[in-house]
Amino acid sequence: MMHQPLADEFRYRLHATDGAARLGEVVTPRGVIRTPAFMPVGTAATVKGMYPEQVRALGADILLGNTYHLMLRPGAERVAALGGLHEFMRWPHPILTDSGGFQVMSLAALRKMTEKGVTFRSHIDGTYYELTPERSVEIQGLLGSDIQMQLDECVRLPASGEEIARALRLSLRWAERSKKAFELQPKGRALFGIVQGGDAPELREESARGLVDIGFPGYSIGGLAVGEPQEVMLRMLEVVNPILPTDRPRYLMGVGTPDDIIESVARGVDMFDCVMPTRSGRHALAFTRFGRINLKNARHADDPRPLDEESDCPAARDYSRAYLHHLVRCDEMLGSMLLTWVNLAYYQHLMAGIRAAIAEGRFKAFKAEVKEGWARGDIPAR
Amino acid sequence: MMHQPLADEFRYRLHATDGAARLGEVVTPRGVIRTPAFMPVGTAATVKGMYPEQVRALGADILLGNTYHLMLRPGAERVAALGGLHEFMRWPHPILTDSGGFQVMSLAALRKMTEKGVTFRSHIDGTYYELTPERSVEIQGLLGSDIQMQLDECVRLPASGEEIARALRLSLRWAERSKKAFELQPKGRALFGIVQGGDAPELREESARGLVDIGFPGYSIGGLAVGEPQEVMLRMLEVVNPILPTDRPRYLMGVGTPDDIIESVARGVDMFDCVMPTRSGRHALAFTRFGRINLKNARHADDPRPLDEESDCPAARDYSRAYLHHLVRCDEMLGSMLLTWVNLAYYQHLMAGIRAAIAEGRFKAFKAEVKEGWARGDIPAR
Repeated sequence: MMHQPLADEFRYRLHATDGAARLGEVVTPRGVIRTPAFMPVGTAATVKGMYPEQVRALGADILLGNTYHLMLRPGAERVAALGGLHEFMRWPHPILTDSGGFQVMSLAALRKMTEKGVTFRSHIDGTYYELTPERSVEIQGLLGSDIQMQLDECVRLPASGEEIARALRLSLRWAERSKKAFELQPKGRALFGIVQGGDAPELREESARGLVDIGFPGYSIGGLAVGEPQEVMLRMLEVVNPILPTDRPRYLMGVGTPDDIIESVARGVDMFDCVMPTRSGRHALAFTRFGRINLKNARHADDPRPLDEESDCPAARDYSRAYLHHLVRCDEMLGSMLLTWVNLAYYQHLMAGIRAAIAEGRFKAFKAEVKEGWARGDIPAR
Repeated sequence: MMHQPLADEFRYRLHATDGAARLGEVVTPRGVIRTPAFMPVGTAATVKGMYPEQVRALGADILLGNTYHLMLRPGAERVAALGGLHEFMRWPHPILTDSGGFQVMSLAALRKMTEKGVTFRSHIDGTYYELTPERSVEIQGLLGSDIQMQLDECVRLPASGEEIARALRLSLRWAERSKKAFELQPKGRALFGIVQGGDAPELREESARGLVDIGFPGYSIGGLAVGEPQEVMLRMLEVVNPILPTDRPRYLMGVGTPDDIIESVARGVDMFDCVMPTRSGRHALAFTRFGRINLKNARHADDPRPLDEESDCPAARDYSRAYLHHLVRCDEMLGSMLLTWVNLAYYQHLMAGIRAAIAEGRFKAFKAEVKEGWARGDIPAR
């Protein structure tokens, strides 16, 4: 495997701002992450339906792996014995992992949370596991993750202020324990603290300030895009981002639609991840410059045009809508493969456009143009 | 789409023989097919889990499409309106299609066969269809198929001699009707007659002689590898091939395992197709120089070795068995994609080896070597 010894330390460089939008890069020993960045999701050590070389060729500098899934299968110790996650999945570039906590809460059975951590049974075979802040960091270290997340508690909204406050304070105590556990790991990796606080501005503020006091090389913003209106999410960003240090990257977890991303960049976010492009690709939905196109729709059955003849992505440029519709109707693997490719290409294309626009001080105009394209909608079939 | 106007006529060139094994090429306006050839199966206008460029890069000169599936979805007239099957599925090289008859008999509902043809209902939505020798050729023409098959009746074995004889004689009458219907099609395409006759040497002989009397640019051998012992299949080839003209290609339909293929080449067969490499790839089974490897087996879970470090195929050479096992266990699309790739690469590698061996007059030694590799079995895990 190829390694690029570009740096022996983890650091963030801010190159330009345009309003609150930031152009920069996260430098790691495994490579540079151009920000704002979108991280394709490789849940179980694979970006579903894509060869790793393809994902890279689209311009992805970093992938996300899910600690919950990987600790269950194939297991962190096994991945470590096999040379780490990068080697295992043939992705020699940076990898970010979550803490596992979010998916324990959404997928695992018989969960029990205490001050110490969370115990649960695997949703696959019922095996009993314990996940503590220390064990989460240990697992992420065994995987060899470049950017690791503290274990936190993310409450479902709507929730009472009391419940949100309890969870964020627990998360702050876990942040300290995580930071201490992380000290054992090699130089060049980073652990991010996670801002919680639900939809309450004063609690978001408390969480952000608490984390900054502990001090992290980067900050995640969690517990958003979980069903609340977009304006609530954006307001929380407006509260949190001014508190976070400008010399550290900011990662908005699990977000989102192209519109969520561009609006969050406008409020100072640097990093994103979401299953939307990959999951939608497996469900016949294509993201394009002209909005979303549902290839299940019979109107595509006789349409010889590609999804976007101006795209650089062969899947969007070279295959007819009629063919994509046919593949989707027949539930053919190639349909999922091509539409996942289309969507990841579109997301990376959007991020490249965002970065270029910030560099040239025309982010606001770019945002308006892009939104105009989405609003225009797809060209009608002949 | 790129077209190679290599010839305006369909023809077969025999370059060398080694025992009964034949090295040659089938020349078509869309390209040359090096024989002995293995044709990957693209049932519903896609080789499952593979991009068309990948299939080509493995050395496939021709694909097989299934008329039954394509007439149901997306429909022959629709494919024709979209520019033909080559354009539709982005495969500008030769395509062979079956007649649809075999899959009507195995998949469709409420089948009724008469002298005229067969009527049935779609297994997908119950739509009523009629398939006659003339309509089968018409559909294959609408698809734009380079090598078309006559409609025939393939009886299941075991069957009485009477039943086998009745079916082969019906198939001979349909062969004449098919040939007549095919006269409407553009020059450069070919229609093959299909030898039937079950497991009865004298009926195989009757069928082959009858077809040769009618006269076709190529001959298919059908109704084999349908459950009978391999030695029965090989004996039928020994009966049929000497009757078929040496200046026409011979295609053994739906065959088979690597061993079936090499033994059939030894008896003078030029062309093969089978779902085995693709279907096995979706079921965790890899074909290698050292036989079959079942990636479901837990013994691979910690094995960092690739399937075959000497393979030219990235899927066989670059990914660990541990990773492939993980993908299979998690039912990840990439597992099917990689193992399909491995298997098609192995099949094409085998055909290239067969062709080189015949060219050099060492086919017998090559066959022995290859079988030694399979018999040796996989290297034990560490």
